[in-house]
Amino acid sequence: MPENRDALHPVRHRVDVELGDRSYPVLIDHGLLERAGELLKPLLAQPRVIIVNDIGLEPTPHVDTLEASLEAEGIRSQRITIASGEASKCHATYATLMDDILALGVDRRIAIVAFGGGVVGDLAGFAAATLLRGVDLIQIPTTLLSQVDSSVGGKTGINSRHGKNLVGAFHQPKAVLIDGRVLDTLPMRELRAGYAEIIKYGCITDPEFFAWLEENGARLLAGDAEARAIAIRRSVEIKASVVADDERETAGARALLNFGHTFAHAYEALAGYGGTLLHGEAVSIGMCKAADLSARLGIASHADATRLRNHLQTLGMPVSPRQIRNETFEADSLLDAMQRDKKVQNGKMHFILWRGIGKAFVARDVPPETLRELLCEDG
Amino acid sequence: MPENRDALHPVRHRVDVELGDRSYPVLIDHGLLERAGELLKPLLAQPRVIIVNDIGLEPTPHVDTLEASLEAEGIRSQRITIASGEASKCHATYATLMDDILALGVDRRIAIVAFGGGVVGDLAGFAAATLLRGVDLIQIPTTLLSQVDSSVGGKTGINSRHGKNLVGAFHQPKAVLIDGRVLDTLPMRELRAGYAEIIKYGCITDPEFFAWLEENGARLLAGDAEARAIAIRRSVEIKASVVADDERETAGARALLNFGHTFAHAYEALAGYGGTLLHGEAVSIGMCKAADLSARLGIASHADATRLRNHLQTLGMPVSPRQIRNETFEADSLLDAMQRDKKVQNGKMHFILWRGIGKAFVARDVPPETLRELLCEDG
Repeated sequence: MPENRDALHPVRHRVDVELGDRSYPVLIDHGLLERAGELLKPLLAQPRVIIVNDIGLEPTPHVDTLEASLEAEGIRSQRITIASGEASKCHATYATLMDDILALGVDRRIAIVAFGGGVVGDLAGFAAATLLRGVDLIQIPTTLLSQVDSSVGGKTGINSRHGKNLVGAFHQPKAVLIDGRVLDTLPMRELRAGYAEIIKYGCITDPEFFAWLEENGARLLAGDAEARAIAIRRSVEIKASVVADDERETAGARALLNFGHTFAHAYEALAGYGGTLLHGEAVSIGMCKAADLSARLGIASHADATRLRNHLQTLGMPVSPRQIRNETFEADSLLDAMQRDKKVQNGKMHFILWRGIGKAFVARDVPPETLRELLCEDG
Repeated sequence: MPENRDALHPVRHRVDVELGDRSYPVLIDHGLLERAGELLKPLLAQPRVIIVNDIGLEPTPHVDTLEASLEAEGIRSQRITIASGEASKCHATYATLMDDILALGVDRRIAIVAFGGGVVGDLAGFAAATLLRGVDLIQIPTTLLSQVDSSVGGKTGINSRHGKNLVGAFHQPKAVLIDGRVLDTLPMRELRAGYAEIIKYGCITDPEFFAWLEENGARLLAGDAEARAIAIRRSVEIKASVVADDERETAGARALLNFGHTFAHAYEALAGYGGTLLHGEAVSIGMCKAADLSARLGIASHADATRLRNHLQTLGMPVSPRQIRNETFEADSLLDAMQRDKKVQNGKMHFILWRGIGKAFVARDVPPETLRELLCEDG
């Protein structure tokens, strides 16, 4: 992928998600937010956007930077703020958001800018997918997790009382803008949670990237801008490639991105979505379980499982459900939660396992007793 | 379009909506409902569907016919019934419907069968578009209006307090099954309302069809199965062709389907959606207005406007807002309502006018004073 494709506006890293007439660039650079106006202007159908962001515990000045940059280019912006947290991904907040957007008076040339973490990206993305039967969407992810995962690939949606992301749409953005600088104000716990998805890319398809992360992961978490940019870029490249092969998760390729996630979703469902267990933390534990299950089934070596676990532990990430405070996870409850996961077909769960680092695959016939043994260990 | 394409299962009329990998057949025949099972079986990813229908004032046995036909082919069906009427196209009913579907335990191979009029088609279609980010949809329209219009073309959605269909998605069905026999239990007022959309196709693009309807319209409304099938087939052919040219209403071709509709939507908004004014009745009046406006602007002859009005009047359809009981329509209120229509761009309304029968086009610069004069006549 050529860097600096546009000589007038050099952006350090650019990854293109190749989807025919739905293709779009992911632009990655330090301080990119200050240039959002010039970068977005040629992509907009009219010089007007609606920014959807959330209010967290600590308001940050990043959205002001974005608005100033848009204003400098003559792009009118209006902002709608939702409450932080997974609870906002619900029908009620969705309905209110749609009404709030429509109250501003919009036509089909409007663009929605999702500015925030995964919750904002999913909710505002679903709003863009369904406003006037679909308007343009710009993703500006501000957490490491959303930068390397949810902002790329077009999945949008809200939760149902029957589970997460059960209501939604595939709606690709027109562009994704990733500014590594906004991570400087992100709490370390959130950074680590995002890192889990980065190491996941190494696990499923790229042993060299895995090894690079073993060397550079600590530097990345400590704030090294160069290490962050490289890791984000490589993660986005892998995600873009998988999405290009299997946009709507029908061919199986995209399923590999769920390495560790069947376990993770079950832990999250049991822990609730109140902050006890972050998604990335659940993925960290879930990947260890997937590696353990692969080893137990004789598909992969125990050494690879240990190598993953050691790396995660070294960086302070959870590797066992026993590390989650005030929570116990009964095997039966976990199995129930897995059965409710939306990827179940014909009542058969499928798991993403690996044959070793960088070699993930879809396993459809995991013996229930092996699975139960694994889960009972932590009971 | 070849008829009887499938020798084993000859269906009298078949129209294909050509949209690449989203192409689908519209099957039209008398008594088709009894054969729904055999016709749908090869199209389903699994032998299971969820039927969404509504309860009207007079329950009909048609849904039982459908269920028996599915059962005979080993297709499991479960039914979810919503309240009749435009009020069901709201966020609350949508949220409840999604929860009700998910409570049945579904995966991505499920198909939603929208069985009813336009409200059911739009709402159940939007549910299919957004369930697990999109599942298969079968449209079985049971009103003349939905048979010739809303069931074909992939528009789905719900209303907002800011206007109709402002929240939704383009989601093409896998098939549309049209059984003329279900119209036998449809009230005459509903039949006439559907007929307005049929005559619209003649107005926008097919003067021969218009002339045929002048000859055969009364026979069609009186229950002649042959006349109904021919009119439905020709309507669907024209709609399919327009949709194939402009699936997402971006190129302008699809806009022609809105002949009379900018006026109609304004009358509906002012009359409310409680049954005072049916959509098709509003379209009947709106088409007369569009023809009058074209004549006033010197674009078309007054004779064509008169010919349209005479035909509609002969069949007992409303041609002026003064025929709507207990309603007055102030020009200012109508203009306000038109300004809020979702097709407004840059504050400029566009109208579908005609140069004569069968020659509709998009007019972007209608002088406001001419429009106001036209509307004041009925004040």
